[in-house]
Amino acid sequence: MKTYPLEKVFELIEPGPVVLVSTAHKGQANLMAMSWLMPMEFTPPLIGCVTGPWNFSYRALRATRECVIAVPGVDLAEKTVKIGNCTGADVDKFKTFRLTPRPAAKVGAPLVAECLYNVECRLVDATLANKFGFLVLQAVAAWTNPVRRDRRTFHANGDGTFVVDGRPLNLKQWMTKFPQFV
Amino acid sequence: MKTYPLEKVFELIEPGPVVLVSTAHKGQANLMAMSWLMPMEFTPPLIGCVTGPWNFSYRALRATRECVIAVPGVDLAEKTVKIGNCTGADVDKFKTFRLTPRPAAKVGAPLVAECLYNVECRLVDATLANKFGFLVLQAVAAWTNPVRRDRRTFHANGDGTFVVDGRPLNLKQWMTKFPQFV
Repeated sequence: MKTYPLEKVFELIEPGPVVLVSTAHKGQANLMAMSWLMPMEFTPPLIGCVTGPWNFSYRALRATRECVIAVPGVDLAEKTVKIGNCTGADVDKFKTFRLTPRPAAKVGAPLVAECLYNVECRLVDATLANKFGFLVLQAVAAWTNPVRRDRRTFHANGDGTFVVDGRPLNLKQWMTKFPQFV
Repeated sequence: MKTYPLEKVFELIEPGPVVLVSTAHKGQANLMAMSWLMPMEFTPPLIGCVTGPWNFSYRALRATRECVIAVPGVDLAEKTVKIGNCTGADVDKFKTFRLTPRPAAKVGAPLVAECLYNVECRLVDATLANKFGFLVLQAVAAWTNPVRRDRRTFHANGDGTFVVDGRPLNLKQWMTKFPQFV
């Protein structure tokens, strides 16, 4: 895995892919699937997400204040959904779904070797955690897997169906005031 | 336009499409493009988004506490980017970009007739507005445009390129515990 620039982390989140979130707590690495997230700032790169106390990973994330957001390619779609439909309380997800944990540089949670990108995050704001399950994460390191040729991600429709990335559209010529387009 | 069920509003936001946000303030209807948003709750349907005081629409949204989130199809991609690259302080965007404002049912901001979906929203939480430009909206009415056959949306990569919805992927068979997958 190669380092990925922190100032471009928002570009991984903005298109709205389904992601995996890894945590490590009390000696146990775990994974969850997440689709309720968005970029909140370019630099330092902030990411907002919603989860909640019913979730095993949420408790690990609140306790350790660290996680890794991993962006899976479309080849991992089925595994990602299965990961989202069982709990770390019962299952060793890395082992069960044959994914490879790799040590991160700045956080205790592991990277997911098979994913396209990995973003190491620290929890920086939990003001709205109790009211909405809303957490603000700051990316502190990021990685890309350059070996992967197929860079297509997939997006959740929320009903068990998904949509895979289709054709690219280059509209750079109209982006005269880039930062307004958020 | 036909009514769209409120409990399914999160399904419009979760895949991460670029949206238009309409506001109406001091007799002026306006539009902005937005890509930093996510669902936060199923029912009542809550949507989190990030914008800020540099933005003309932000001031209208804070003052009126109302807006419409309109989901454009890929046919409106170029117009959407142009809308995101000029300001309502200078331009009558509905007129300039030949989009049709329609009266909403519950808010003062207009619907955008050409879009696939329109979601009428009220601002319900601005706790993190000053710190992060983060606003929580509640959907109070929603509409679908059933005439439109092509339902493809588009996603922003953040660099002036976009990705159009590609092939669908049905993984319902693995969604045994649906609400965890968020």
